Amino acid sequence: MRHDVQLLGISNAIVDVLANVDHSFLSDIGTVPGSMTLVDETQAHAIYDRMGPATEMSGGSVANSVAAFALLGGSAAYIGKVKDDQLGEIFNHDMRALGVDIRLQPAPDGAPTARSHVLITDDGQRTMCTYLGACTELATADITESTFGRPKATLIEGYVWDIAEGPALAQRAMELAKESQTAVALSLSDSFCVERHKASFADAVANHVDIVLADEDEINMLLGTDNIDDTLEAIRDRDNLFVITRSEEGSVIYHRGNTVIQSAIPVEHVIDTTGAGDAYSAGFLYGWANEWSLEDAARLGTHVATSVIQRVGARIKPGLMDSFDR
Amino acid sequence: MRHDVQLLGISNAIVDVLANVDHSFLSDIGTVPGSMTLVDETQAHAIYDRMGPATEMSGGSVANSVAAFALLGGSAAYIGKVKDDQLGEIFNHDMRALGVDIRLQPAPDGAPTARSHVLITDDGQRTMCTYLGACTELATADITESTFGRPKATLIEGYVWDIAEGPALAQRAMELAKESQTAVALSLSDSFCVERHKASFADAVANHVDIVLADEDEINMLLGTDNIDDTLEAIRDRDNLFVITRSEEGSVIYHRGNTVIQSAIPVEHVIDTTGAGDAYSAGFLYGWANEWSLEDAARLGTHVATSVIQRVGARIKPGLMDSFDR
Repeated sequence: MRHDVQLLGISNAIVDVLANVDHSFLSDIGTVPGSMTLVDETQAHAIYDRMGPATEMSGGSVANSVAAFALLGGSAAYIGKVKDDQLGEIFNHDMRALGVDIRLQPAPDGAPTARSHVLITDDGQRTMCTYLGACTELATADITESTFGRPKATLIEGYVWDIAEGPALAQRAMELAKESQTAVALSLSDSFCVERHKASFADAVANHVDIVLADEDEINMLLGTDNIDDTLEAIRDRDNLFVITRSEEGSVIYHRGNTVIQSAIPVEHVIDTTGAGDAYSAGFLYGWANEWSLEDAARLGTHVATSVIQRVGARIKPGLMDSFDR
Repeated sequence: MRHDVQLLGISNAIVDVLANVDHSFLSDIGTVPGSMTLVDETQAHAIYDRMGPATEMSGGSVANSVAAFALLGGSAAYIGKVKDDQLGEIFNHDMRALGVDIRLQPAPDGAPTARSHVLITDDGQRTMCTYLGACTELATADITESTFGRPKATLIEGYVWDIAEGPALAQRAMELAKESQTAVALSLSDSFCVERHKASFADAVANHVDIVLADEDEINMLLGTDNIDDTLEAIRDRDNLFVITRSEEGSVIYHRGNTVIQSAIPVEHVIDTTGAGDAYSAGFLYGWANEWSLEDAARLGTHVATSVIQRVGARIKPGLMDSFDR
């Protein structure tokens, strides 16, 4: 099987609207610090009206991973739904500018391109209020042999399960993956998302997923564990490759009896944690796709994540590979 | 005369699309480093297609000054034309979020909201390719007693002369200013702009303008001088207040025999010079509007400009007044 690209992302295509806010802003709008809340268009406007001046840049969890993967030098493609509007143009531009093959045309009508109000507090934490807009119209019919192609791996985000046809289109992608000998990677997105779709995620992990990408809260929610030792015990006999990020505790990779413990790189000043996990996934998957050792892949993931938390926004900067010693 | 706001800006309402580029990018697209080139929609798309991933934020020269003026604590209003599209919403949001009174409704049809591709090279210089879009539809009919109001000062940018009804609408604004005892401030925008509209600017400065805001290239182009001594000689008998910025040489204020020489504040690393002059204007006009001495106004202008060149983008950050010792 000849693969057309190394990585195909399937996820919500979102433009981030980033602004610095006080903690009181978060309590005023009734959100939990650090959470991602889905909002409707009216709520999105109400939050935007209260926000200060903002900066816009392309975002979306797995979309960030795909962008970073391409910037590291990997070949990548992307399936996500934007409308044919200015934010949609921005999103697709930023992906294409990195060489990512955009597999879907912008929708000529329907809801506007999604935006996420990313509220950054002075502790560097992100709190997101996301209006999914056009993303909600991503459909099973968008996942075809032609749009899916024959990637070496496909990376699907848990958030996809939040949209109406999400579970069905994820299922379709996992079936196509089997036919094309494509590895399936699942990013668990956030622990609330895991809670919403626990049974479906558990089924996917048991039957279709090759690589599980999660932070500790997410994997604990999925497995019903509450510490890393129990988690490692719970996955001991599984066949999946598990990639578990643990913030300043580093990360743990587990695959069929092999455990890799990777330390975090100390950072003097965290500017914005937006996209740290997505950046890690990009680095790890780049190593994986190029058949590096798990150790090296984990080190690259850490290197990329460390860079992204030291600047505002979730997208990584060019030239990161130059500063990585494999 | 009771003024409704301290400052009314009249200018091109633009969203900046910022990206880092190599110098070779500039020569490939045939632009002069440091210049502002007007491009049509087709050219704008061609440049955007070649650009890397970008960040979007509200911009526009005098719009930046108005935003900074409001952020410093001044009361401000704004006349500029956006379309009722996503970039127009972003522009108006960012102004309103600072308390700026937006005086025009977004246009329901016509050209899209303006964008400027701001190409930042590693020397911190900005090169801009601007598609004026909706700005070109700003019309004399938009400047009425109701939209103009009774500001203490109105700040008009030279770039307004580049749009079809620009000279006429600027004339209308200057007439309304006379009726409402409003001081007229003119920002000369850039030296190529001065070259394009030299006679018209000279007439305005001779007959209507109270405050001339310019960098050295711009004032030299207007007066036909080529060094600061000749410039000061040429303006010696004029009644206008001249505010001349000179990059690392600081600034010179001249008004009816009084000369204020203000040094620049040394900066270790210039990140992006976008908006330095606009920031200076905001600080200076804030001092002027609050009847500070010219010295203090020049010091605040310098303080604000120094802050803006140490970050990406042209808009200033909150809290700048806290670090200013008057």
